[in-house]
Amino acid sequence: MSEPRLKLAIATPLPADAEAVLRAEPRIELLHEPSLIPAQRFPSDHYGEADFKRTPEQEAAFDALLARADAVYGIPDEDPAQVARVCTTSVRWVATTAAGGGSLIGAGGLDDSTLERIAFTSSAGVHARPLAEFALLGVLAGFQRVPELKAQQAARVWPDRGDFPRGLAGARILVLGLGHIGREVSRLLSALGAHVTGTSRHATSDPHAHAVVHPDRLEEAAANADALIVTLPATVLTRHLVSRAVIAALPAGATVVNVGRGTVIDEAALTEALESRHVGFAALDVFETEPLPSKSRLWELPNVLVSPHAATMNRDEDRLIAELLVFNARRLLDGEPLKNRIDTHEFY
Amino acid sequence: MSEPRLKLAIATPLPADAEAVLRAEPRIELLHEPSLIPAQRFPSDHYGEADFKRTPEQEAAFDALLARADAVYGIPDEDPAQVARVCTTSVRWVATTAAGGGSLIGAGGLDDSTLERIAFTSSAGVHARPLAEFALLGVLAGFQRVPELKAQQAARVWPDRGDFPRGLAGARILVLGLGHIGREVSRLLSALGAHVTGTSRHATSDPHAHAVVHPDRLEEAAANADALIVTLPATVLTRHLVSRAVIAALPAGATVVNVGRGTVIDEAALTEALESRHVGFAALDVFETEPLPSKSRLWELPNVLVSPHAATMNRDEDRLIAELLVFNARRLLDGEPLKNRIDTHEFY
Repeated sequence: MSEPRLKLAIATPLPADAEAVLRAEPRIELLHEPSLIPAQRFPSDHYGEADFKRTPEQEAAFDALLARADAVYGIPDEDPAQVARVCTTSVRWVATTAAGGGSLIGAGGLDDSTLERIAFTSSAGVHARPLAEFALLGVLAGFQRVPELKAQQAARVWPDRGDFPRGLAGARILVLGLGHIGREVSRLLSALGAHVTGTSRHATSDPHAHAVVHPDRLEEAAANADALIVTLPATVLTRHLVSRAVIAALPAGATVVNVGRGTVIDEAALTEALESRHVGFAALDVFETEPLPSKSRLWELPNVLVSPHAATMNRDEDRLIAELLVFNARRLLDGEPLKNRIDTHEFY
Repeated sequence: MSEPRLKLAIATPLPADAEAVLRAEPRIELLHEPSLIPAQRFPSDHYGEADFKRTPEQEAAFDALLARADAVYGIPDEDPAQVARVCTTSVRWVATTAAGGGSLIGAGGLDDSTLERIAFTSSAGVHARPLAEFALLGVLAGFQRVPELKAQQAARVWPDRGDFPRGLAGARILVLGLGHIGREVSRLLSALGAHVTGTSRHATSDPHAHAVVHPDRLEEAAANADALIVTLPATVLTRHLVSRAVIAALPAGATVVNVGRGTVIDEAALTEALESRHVGFAALDVFETEPLPSKSRLWELPNVLVSPHAATMNRDEDRLIAELLVFNARRLLDGEPLKNRIDTHEFY
């Protein structure tokens, strides 16, 4: 008797090295027709060539492929309107490419029975390390006053006295969220001697943080934070959690990093705080509106590092996602709970 | 019978918290006349107020104080011409404030008998942690292509595709020198998962590095380095050790950091390599000539972070130096070898 196999349909660009990882697992039957998928433009690209269009025949072939699938990897074009399409009657599992795949599924407008029938997973964890390194860069740049150094450099000024960098040892870091990203951020900063406080709605302790506080106590926690790092996804509960009041509570000159989602921070309030230098430095990989509108004042502030939602990018991402797919395929076949299951009430 | 005591003359600005550390050691008799020393302008300032001048009477009083001393902390104005002055016939130990105090002593033109009679020590180690954090910032900024991000930001461009940051995990880091600073740099980067190769003329292994190579093999080592970090002092042996050939051997786009001394790198060759982008990014705290001359092209290169020899600065420095003074005072009184003894042949 042969082992049960999982028919996994590929609905997003898949490079050769990632495909090789999937093909190496004998219990996965890959439904992958490259002509139906846009080519990947660069590593970790999940959209593919912008001018790709399926012919009507190709659209029908793609639907036929999805109709045979037990599981699907990717939402075509990461487009909410395509979510329902991949949720065919045979599908039991949909794996999204993003760490924050929940909001895409949530925007898909699925009915309750579909949400109950299908397991949705994110690729959370794959992005944690590069995001944690971006956060570390942001904290170090803020603590070492890079904007002041760059201003002196532009003016060719060798100052009589330098500024006083703050070191990481003993620095008070507030990490919003203790999911994959928050834990990796906390782990790196703790390893470097910082004192990390994490926030959690449920947990009261975490092995990677020195203390855990409830988000209800955010203002109080912010008042004792040399740096605040957002790692939270976009949910109804996280919107503007970093409010004007939380920003005002930060000590003067604090550093802010966002590697979660832009909506978690009241961006207008943050912009004002950066302009007044109440917040000394911000490293932002995400924004309330993306692409960041050209009229945003954040572009021109010398004490802001704007990263175009690119800090997750790394050469290993596709392979790591493929390894996660294999891991979860085995779990599904073995009747075990999936890793990175998306909460279909709050969609994170 | 009372214990032997050490008369320690203070010849450089000493703030109250550092003085308190010295006064707490009963075996030290502090010869400290604040009116004879310029006031400290800011923490870790070892020069003091620029317009301070001793009257002729004060100069005589200062010499009388030095003539009674067993040991001296600091070279007035960190001026080579003042080195011989503090080496009175009673003095057995001179402690310098800098990590690289050796070159100052070397420039003092002392005769061999004085160099033999007196133990000279540096404050190496005190600066290691902030320098290591500057090096970490430099590597992260290079790996995450901050100059490109800032160029996009200045142009308000949200690129279709981001650049591909390199992560620290598995990155190949070449650390020149495994003294206090090199070890701390290696320790931090190893803790973050980088593969660290250190250089040493004597050692073949080090607990903080994965491999150790002799400086004679620098070109070969540079060819396999994603980042090169200089932590070496200025000696006759280190001058232009990072030669044009070593720079050329680096892989395209490598990151260079200097937290040692500027003369270790052929600065003209590095400047050209930065202009051609062969070296992707450099974070430089030290330069061949300091202050960096206003005509230097390094000021204007977008892929250079110029730090005005300020990365050592930290709020704790004076206290840490005082603790080191107490440690060595006890060693001297107990007949133990001093920590951070300066090599009076190579002056490092």
